[in-house]
Amino acid sequence: MSQLAQQPCEACRSDAPPVSEQEIKTLQREIPEWSLVQRDGIPQLERVFAFRNFKQALAFTNQVGDLAEQAGHHPALLTEWGKVTVFWWTHAINGLHKNDFILAARTDALLTQAP
Amino acid sequence: MSQLAQQPCEACRSDAPPVSEQEIKTLQREIPEWSLVQRDGIPQLERVFAFRNFKQALAFTNQVGDLAEQAGHHPALLTEWGKVTVFWWTHAINGLHKNDFILAARTDALLTQAP
Repeated sequence: MSQLAQQPCEACRSDAPPVSEQEIKTLQREIPEWSLVQRDGIPQLERVFAFRNFKQALAFTNQVGDLAEQAGHHPALLTEWGKVTVFWWTHAINGLHKNDFILAARTDALLTQAP
Repeated sequence: MSQLAQQPCEACRSDAPPVSEQEIKTLQREIPEWSLVQRDGIPQLERVFAFRNFKQALAFTNQVGDLAEQAGHHPALLTEWGKVTVFWWTHAINGLHKNDFILAARTDALLTQAP
């Protein structure tokens, strides 16, 4: 598990500062499989996870859902046959907060855990 | 439950004919909450279901997932805080088959069942 995955999430309010471009570059090195995308005009972190079938994909969606509930921070999860696309961003600021990078790293860490 | 929801799905091969425009108009009357959209250039049925929070949204995603596994026909499910967007289409023909309308009607019927 990366060091980033072990950091605590901070409470995030609508006046919280988004991460700077320099911080994004530094944090992205910890989660190299994630892409920085614009979705509905909002910067988000995106990663596609591949699975053998729909059932395994849905099981992973539920794992990420549990992680989200524990953190009180929720992604968008696109579940399809054989893949799950995960999007992390912070609704309160319509952008990226350090929490999103922490949760992306924790999502990666789920892959190394038993289902 | 609509009559459509009670019809059996047919096996669908890559040479199966997609539904005609006239058939689409007739079938759409049975599932008035669904929109006909183009996603990645493929015609699909889309409906957004609203929920109180992430947990309830994810529970619905799992209900639709169970329905899909039983039918052997799988949608794309976008799970977010307070909503699930369901997309039905037929991968084998890159378009809409009658099965998609049947599964959309069955998805509607889930709302009237206990979770």
